[in-house]
Amino acid sequence: MAESGANSGAKPDDGIVTAALLVIGDEILSGRTKDKNIGYIAEYLTVIGIDLKEVRVVPDEEPEIVTALNALRARYTYVFTTGGIGPTHDDITADSVAKAFGVPVRHDPRAVELMTERVRQTGGVMNEARMRMTRVPEGAELVLNKISAAPGFWIGNVIVMAGVPHIMQTMLEYVTPNLKTGARMLSESVRADCREGDIGTELGEIAKQHPDVVIGSYPFMDEKIGGNTHVVVRSRDAQKLAAAKMAVEAMLQRVRAELAAGKA
Amino acid sequence: MAESGANSGAKPDDGIVTAALLVIGDEILSGRTKDKNIGYIAEYLTVIGIDLKEVRVVPDEEPEIVTALNALRARYTYVFTTGGIGPTHDDITADSVAKAFGVPVRHDPRAVELMTERVRQTGGVMNEARMRMTRVPEGAELVLNKISAAPGFWIGNVIVMAGVPHIMQTMLEYVTPNLKTGARMLSESVRADCREGDIGTELGEIAKQHPDVVIGSYPFMDEKIGGNTHVVVRSRDAQKLAAAKMAVEAMLQRVRAELAAGKA
Repeated sequence: MAESGANSGAKPDDGIVTAALLVIGDEILSGRTKDKNIGYIAEYLTVIGIDLKEVRVVPDEEPEIVTALNALRARYTYVFTTGGIGPTHDDITADSVAKAFGVPVRHDPRAVELMTERVRQTGGVMNEARMRMTRVPEGAELVLNKISAAPGFWIGNVIVMAGVPHIMQTMLEYVTPNLKTGARMLSESVRADCREGDIGTELGEIAKQHPDVVIGSYPFMDEKIGGNTHVVVRSRDAQKLAAAKMAVEAMLQRVRAELAAGKA
Repeated sequence: MAESGANSGAKPDDGIVTAALLVIGDEILSGRTKDKNIGYIAEYLTVIGIDLKEVRVVPDEEPEIVTALNALRARYTYVFTTGGIGPTHDDITADSVAKAFGVPVRHDPRAVELMTERVRQTGGVMNEARMRMTRVPEGAELVLNKISAAPGFWIGNVIVMAGVPHIMQTMLEYVTPNLKTGARMLSESVRADCREGDIGTELGEIAKQHPDVVIGSYPFMDEKIGGNTHVVVRSRDAQKLAAAKMAVEAMLQRVRAELAAGKA
């Protein structure tokens, strides 16, 4: 598994499946709405064996969405999008995705049926705005959800989902059985019980000696000892992961002893 | 103010100041760490009169950081970055920014002084890892913070900050007096007391009649009436904003009366 850290796009043959996330919405960029989807999707994809390699947040502007989508879909196995599939004029995701793929947008008969039924149940009227939510690019498959009748859709390697977190989450579950997944990135976390600056050089040496393992370190404030660090080792190979974790633990034991001796 | 919605990069002459945010870190993409900086920075910049137009999250990989940084800095007034300025081998932001600007990285004497003093106070040792945190691209100005001795830096239109939220926040405050800001985007929120699908078409018509106002609508679940909607009107012109808000309120009154009559 050479170049496990390299990001050269979709390479399903080597067992690595990649994804990008495109978050669409003025409300995220203005700070009015605090995004809750990035962290959820990142964790979800990691667990099922898809590497999230990039996230972009763009405004409700067609050229921005089309440009970002075309850059991302050429590069990763999948592109997930959130936002912009509601009933109002600023919901332009379906049109933008259709434009990116060069296909027309049409009303999907199944979506019209689902929406009409839902509207009947809730005592509303099937108006132009609600019909807007049944429009998908030609060739797209619907992505249903248990909560609202308004579907997302899947076209090519692009999966279009709602922005509302609990609706997005059921859409992600809906598509999961049909997603290609790769060798899972395994990870182990070790609490260092010393500060990041005490082990930076040592961690770098271990990283060099374990090329198929990614080593990250994350400082945090510990109520008991003050500045502390989580060291996270990640690899697709369980044995290599275990070896790197052992090397980190041995190094930590040595450094902590040296620090204690220095203070004594 | 034509094309207020268009995103054609830095145009300080028309009073609009733009920014992008580049979030650097494997831990965000793996879902291990949930980002708290995007929402904070989005809201902060909106308040001081800078339009956040794009966000990207990229891994700790130099080519990814350099490519994203060069795309963003050519396009927006400012690029803010978070993450990757710690003492370990995976902290490669300073080197990546230097590479993007084509300048060498050097130890900053002031940063060395600050770090040495802090290490003396806390009883640590001034080792290679801590010296790593004093490296900045040639020509960069330090961005200090009240919490840790490790500085961020400002080079060209790029402002490099820590990933730890409370440290990032003091860095943002530190640079604020020196940021060019533009006409603030004003906003007003109106609770619709009806569902988004009831007003979608009407909102689109109002949006067409008020070209210098951006109108967004955000569904939410209301404990009392069920499906409800926040309508947000935004403009840099207070009078135009007020006119659009009045049009929205008049429309809502009419639609609610029609819905009530339909149910009666």
